[in-house]
Amino acid sequence: MPRYADSIQSLVDLLNRLPGIGPKSAERLAFHIVKLSDDEREQLVRALQNVKAGVKRCSLCGQWSGASPCPICANRNRDHAQLCVVAETQDLAAIERTHEYHGVYHVLGGVLNPLTGVTSEDLNINTLTNRIEKGNPKITEVIFGLNPDVEGETTILYLTKLLRPLQVKLTRLARGLPLGANLEYADEVTLGDALKGRRTL
Amino acid sequence: MPRYADSIQSLVDLLNRLPGIGPKSAERLAFHIVKLSDDEREQLVRALQNVKAGVKRCSLCGQWSGASPCPICANRNRDHAQLCVVAETQDLAAIERTHEYHGVYHVLGGVLNPLTGVTSEDLNINTLTNRIEKGNPKITEVIFGLNPDVEGETTILYLTKLLRPLQVKLTRLARGLPLGANLEYADEVTLGDALKGRRTL
Repeated sequence: MPRYADSIQSLVDLLNRLPGIGPKSAERLAFHIVKLSDDEREQLVRALQNVKAGVKRCSLCGQWSGASPCPICANRNRDHAQLCVVAETQDLAAIERTHEYHGVYHVLGGVLNPLTGVTSEDLNINTLTNRIEKGNPKITEVIFGLNPDVEGETTILYLTKLLRPLQVKLTRLARGLPLGANLEYADEVTLGDALKGRRTL
Repeated sequence: MPRYADSIQSLVDLLNRLPGIGPKSAERLAFHIVKLSDDEREQLVRALQNVKAGVKRCSLCGQWSGASPCPICANRNRDHAQLCVVAETQDLAAIERTHEYHGVYHVLGGVLNPLTGVTSEDLNINTLTNRIEKGNPKITEVIFGLNPDVEGETTILYLTKLLRPLQVKLTRLARGLPLGANLEYADEVTLGDALKGRRTL
């Protein structure tokens, strides 16, 4: 296979390591970047260089934020007795966009994954139990806002066992049919969950 | 909608402008980049900064290459009488990977697209007619290796009209069923083309 010019190939290789970027997308991106004006490329370079400098993890919830404590943890109008556990800062943002949640968060920084070697020590779990044990105000409910996939379910199972003795209400996001779904094409588990979780009208 | 910390948001916005990167992928990439080690991020930054410096457009075919003329144009073992016209350097690489083509290339640098304002002046068309008119050895065949989509077809139509008076054989890539295709799901145009272009066994 013919390689591209060295400088392009090394950019392709690096882009290819990023999540969700396959070899073809990496090539397309690299050639797009070659064609950018020097100013545009410099802008991208600067954004990359500065991204880490401008953020830190919030000392309370662990989300990436410009301030610590982050605006959510520092907001006295939110319900600090309700704690939503999410994997990443993006998940927190997704829940915030619903405008349905007024409690605070705890960002684990990932989910348990034996295949990629992510264990409980790699996640912000100590700080989670700490917050629940010593919370002021006392935390009354922990909502697991994790993806309903193998890793998410494993993490929920693990945390449920860990937190059960702490006498706090544990809940998880409902599973069911998403908006616009088609019963005919829904998988059995989702449809079964939607049936079990049916609501009275 | 809550914005992320400024430094993350500006990286998300810039990544979102890249081709094939939607708002969600941009967020995911930005947070991945935040989590990279300083070394890894620095590597990416350097690859971005250096990508343009290490390449130029080949003065003959117009592909991005470390040298001009590029290794293909400089290769005396290739058939310089056969010219394959492609849109981008990546398309050239795709054809090279087939090991079926031994001629040379001409990279247009895009295709005609009235919607995004790409006109014939923006493409390497003058150099193409020039090569065909003054080619040494004389170019005997021009193969259009362009995508079979609206823009590609428009460009083929335009170039066919332009090159017809130059008395050179004009061909295009065959249209038909791709490997592993399913007749039942093939669109009518492709199936019709496969029928018209059927081969004697």
